[in-house]
Amino acid sequence: MQRITMIVAMKQEAAPIIKHLNLSEVKMQDPVLTCQAFQGNYKGLDISLVVNGTDREYNVESVGTQPATITTLEAIRQFTPDLLINAGTCGAFKDKGSAIGDVYMGEKIRYFDRRIPLGEDYFAYGDGSYESALALDYANRLGLKGAVVCTGNSLDMSPTDEAILREEPLVAKEMEAAAIAAVAKMYKTPLLAVKSVTDLVDEECTTAEQFLANLAKASELLQQHVFKLLDVLSSEAKLAC
Amino acid sequence: MQRITMIVAMKQEAAPIIKHLNLSEVKMQDPVLTCQAFQGNYKGLDISLVVNGTDREYNVESVGTQPATITTLEAIRQFTPDLLINAGTCGAFKDKGSAIGDVYMGEKIRYFDRRIPLGEDYFAYGDGSYESALALDYANRLGLKGAVVCTGNSLDMSPTDEAILREEPLVAKEMEAAAIAAVAKMYKTPLLAVKSVTDLVDEECTTAEQFLANLAKASELLQQHVFKLLDVLSSEAKLAC
Repeated sequence: MQRITMIVAMKQEAAPIIKHLNLSEVKMQDPVLTCQAFQGNYKGLDISLVVNGTDREYNVESVGTQPATITTLEAIRQFTPDLLINAGTCGAFKDKGSAIGDVYMGEKIRYFDRRIPLGEDYFAYGDGSYESALALDYANRLGLKGAVVCTGNSLDMSPTDEAILREEPLVAKEMEAAAIAAVAKMYKTPLLAVKSVTDLVDEECTTAEQFLANLAKASELLQQHVFKLLDVLSSEAKLAC
Repeated sequence: MQRITMIVAMKQEAAPIIKHLNLSEVKMQDPVLTCQAFQGNYKGLDISLVVNGTDREYNVESVGTQPATITTLEAIRQFTPDLLINAGTCGAFKDKGSAIGDVYMGEKIRYFDRRIPLGEDYFAYGDGSYESALALDYANRLGLKGAVVCTGNSLDMSPTDEAILREEPLVAKEMEAAAIAAVAKMYKTPLLAVKSVTDLVDEECTTAEQFLANLAKASELLQQHVFKLLDVLSSEAKLAC
């Protein structure tokens, strides 16, 4: 695998990766959209990284499944990657054994806020489970735990959300991966999701407080594991040459 | 306004409109995507209609904000419309005075399932309110009530969703309009949302039962008002010539 595109929601999550890999900004094809791309070379890998960009009306980072859908669509078209990596931060349950800074590989990716009780097929479409055969292999080689990456458009957690999230053994709750997976699947592009815990959703502090307090630390730990993953991918690419 | 693109989520909602306007299927530019387009001419208007299409894995109509995002992006690029019309069905509250078959024009469009309590700006971004200056004008001319079109990815309604939906005076609860509005806004394309009530979310019967029972009736009433709207737009276009 030679061409790797990283999809990262927020600039704050992407900044240490862009800096360490010395990536340079490149133009996206459609200037109407807010997503921003960076490109470079790392140990023989052609790396691109795309962030959703800043919403022009609200002046915040564009988070959630709609910007992730557009970013992934445009990134696949522009960079035709062999592999997508969605790197980002997440919430997790303390009482399922998670701690701030834990880094997980998504062995399954699903929505938790698309409840469509119109029969089995719509129900399954709503969940949108994406199973990554690659993920367990790379998790083992990197010494990472596999988790179920659960995607929804709210940062907080309603009781209804919690009941659905608790169906899964180890949870990485975040806001983009299932939308990225849905687009990746259409274009038959494999996807690895690597998620670092910023907040414990069953703690007394709100998710928002923890998220802001731990974003820098979790992003730092995230980048360390992303680099390890790139090192593994680079050594494989060399073997394949 | 000459070029009008209708965005309709489900084939069942689109079928009577396609038939009555005698639209023919045209290819979308990217065959990887599931969305399908139909085109034709109606009283001097260049009409296109795009549906999200059938999900290839689950064999259901692609509903919700992610397919709506892709459909709108691709439709605007391919058809460069002067006006978008999002026509579809919705849920509504009986105790706010709604009845099955009522047809509303969206004077405001917002999400109800993007709760992002990271300060005022993220909170507002999550709500994503889109106010349509055109909508009230056309609602008056067509004798339609204005409603707040509230978008979320679940067909059912959690207590958390209900509390947010009840903030609005008259509600059209559906699954696509805010995502369509977000893309429309980026491309500076005006949008009208016309929604017909299939289910009363505060009735004892589940939304799913009512939705399936009333989809054909509500789609029929929807199309009648869509044609009235097209007639008004056609007479305006003629006056402008």
